[in-house]
Amino acid sequence: MSLVFEHVSLGQRVLFGNGKAADYLAQEVRRLKARRIMLIASDRAQPAAQQITAQIEVLVNYTQVVMHVPFEVAQHARAVAREYDVDVLVCVGGGSATGLAKAIALDTGLPIIAVPTTYSGSEATNMWGLTVDARKTTGVNDAVLPKTVIYDAEFTMELPVELSVASGLNGMAHCIDSLWGPRADPINQALATEGITALAAGLPSIVDDPQDLAGREQLLYGAYLSAVSFASAGSGLHHKICHVLGGTFDLPHAQTHATVLAYVLAFNMDAAPEASERIARALGATDALAGFQRLRKQLDAPVRLADYGFTQDNIAEAVEIILPVVPANNPRPVTRDNLTALLNAALVGDDPIVVRKADTAESHD
Amino acid sequence: MSLVFEHVSLGQRVLFGNGKAADYLAQEVRRLKARRIMLIASDRAQPAAQQITAQIEVLVNYTQVVMHVPFEVAQHARAVAREYDVDVLVCVGGGSATGLAKAIALDTGLPIIAVPTTYSGSEATNMWGLTVDARKTTGVNDAVLPKTVIYDAEFTMELPVELSVASGLNGMAHCIDSLWGPRADPINQALATEGITALAAGLPSIVDDPQDLAGREQLLYGAYLSAVSFASAGSGLHHKICHVLGGTFDLPHAQTHATVLAYVLAFNMDAAPEASERIARALGATDALAGFQRLRKQLDAPVRLADYGFTQDNIAEAVEIILPVVPANNPRPVTRDNLTALLNAALVGDDPIVVRKADTAESHD
Repeated sequence: MSLVFEHVSLGQRVLFGNGKAADYLAQEVRRLKARRIMLIASDRAQPAAQQITAQIEVLVNYTQVVMHVPFEVAQHARAVAREYDVDVLVCVGGGSATGLAKAIALDTGLPIIAVPTTYSGSEATNMWGLTVDARKTTGVNDAVLPKTVIYDAEFTMELPVELSVASGLNGMAHCIDSLWGPRADPINQALATEGITALAAGLPSIVDDPQDLAGREQLLYGAYLSAVSFASAGSGLHHKICHVLGGTFDLPHAQTHATVLAYVLAFNMDAAPEASERIARALGATDALAGFQRLRKQLDAPVRLADYGFTQDNIAEAVEIILPVVPANNPRPVTRDNLTALLNAALVGDDPIVVRKADTAESHD
Repeated sequence: MSLVFEHVSLGQRVLFGNGKAADYLAQEVRRLKARRIMLIASDRAQPAAQQITAQIEVLVNYTQVVMHVPFEVAQHARAVAREYDVDVLVCVGGGSATGLAKAIALDTGLPIIAVPTTYSGSEATNMWGLTVDARKTTGVNDAVLPKTVIYDAEFTMELPVELSVASGLNGMAHCIDSLWGPRADPINQALATEGITALAAGLPSIVDDPQDLAGREQLLYGAYLSAVSFASAGSGLHHKICHVLGGTFDLPHAQTHATVLAYVLAFNMDAAPEASERIARALGATDALAGFQRLRKQLDAPVRLADYGFTQDNIAEAVEIILPVVPANNPRPVTRDNLTALLNAALVGDDPIVVRKADTAESHD
């Protein structure tokens, strides 16, 4: 098979280490020769932020962190950054804190040091988002990519297990969907595979013991790789389906992802033997689907969309909305019939193998 | 095992595709909005360079490409770039052409688009080198990292097979040594593993058929990954040994690498089970050493240092020079005795397994 691809590696320094966030942050502030530091951390993230910034002097402590980065909030934060002649942004928290830092960087060009305390992955991408009049605008700009990301799993210990598992499965969906995303290439595939390995190690550990630091660390590392590979490879079939189920039918994000992923995997795997082999290997299984189903059981993950408000009546409409946005490079051709079968199976929680087997029937037609 | 690492991803766009170099180059020149192009390509690389630049207008065609980038050459090229108010550097060729472009970029900040026609890997790193009064000065600076690299294996077809195999094995050494290099981390390990896979696929193909484009392509891809992972992870034991054998005893580069690698792999592998598993998997073998030995046989690779001027008398001196520079994180502790045994085995071409077995003896001492 001939190699034809465009891969963009984003330039970023990633520091990993339990209990090392404060040391790392002081080191990075020195490296950037920064002196006028603006900390961005919500009220809830303040205790963590205080520990993490213990060795540096914070000039501005900006706590007005709001979900989805409303434009007015961004404008205010930008004005504060200018007023204080800030020379570095340090964000501590989840996607909202990182998002606000990015909004400031977009406008000012200031460098960001991100210390994520959730698995949002936003810190590893050059994508930004702003909400103007309740409408989200997004864009891509290298100026918003944090120069340095500091990962310290100790600051993720307070994330509830249920939320962590949902995030971890979301990361798993990013990794698996990356393998056949529109811009999938061997480099982002290698990183996605590494991400699956880490998430498959971390997820069962934290279900067994929510305070298992090694498990949290694998989850954090896997979430980082899932963001890197997904940002590079783009949305595959899984995310196109989930986007419609969430957007049009208002199904809950985490549960939808956890359910649909098994069916998309079953659906595509025989048409994507290399990806399947990567997934199987990363899950420590001989078969990708069997490996993923075993993991789902261990995590007591959601099994059917019917439990979350999806109904038989929705399927025809969903199919019509999904079909036009299916990536052209999806390994298995998606038709009205096989997509309907996929959604039917996911609705009632059928064994995903039924979606896989359909493939053979098709190719014999 | 706890994850503690600092990983720096270099920001770079990599375009891969046979027969696509001219299209890709025109696209990248447009992307950079460049209008005043300085082409850097030796006389020998001119035919390739003419094809590759067919769709763009070259303002300056600079052909004075000299190995090791003499300072005077760099100064002249820099003056030319300034005189013509150049806004992008396009280098076509091997390490010397890329090296000259880097020397200009170091001084001027001009962006580089690199089109490598060998497996040097220089295009994927932020390292530069200049020769002043016959002494090589090197440094690291992000300004010299090419913004875009274009890989088109059609322009590597004229590289002689012997040279290609030597380069491929050199890349293999970079990948394997990266797995236990001083800054080895899971990210550069994942990329190194991908590189081993590509090189193990490409090398036997081009030995079977020197004009096998798919094999050349895998080699080129593997060489890129070997440069990325090695620049990130740093020199491990293998490169420390080879550096001394080449520098002090004047052994030939390629043959030394091809021979020593088997012994370093045998030496380290049981102390680095994860790396060994990665290597074995990438080589499609159950045992890393067995897989690598099989590959060496397929390639008819050199087997003993005695064939290249190394003698029994050199070993004691070599050991004394190597010992102080052995990376502290080498998986297996290196002693005067086991390093002597390694060099003895490599000298006469003993089965590398003898170096591996020594491990057990040591741990029982």
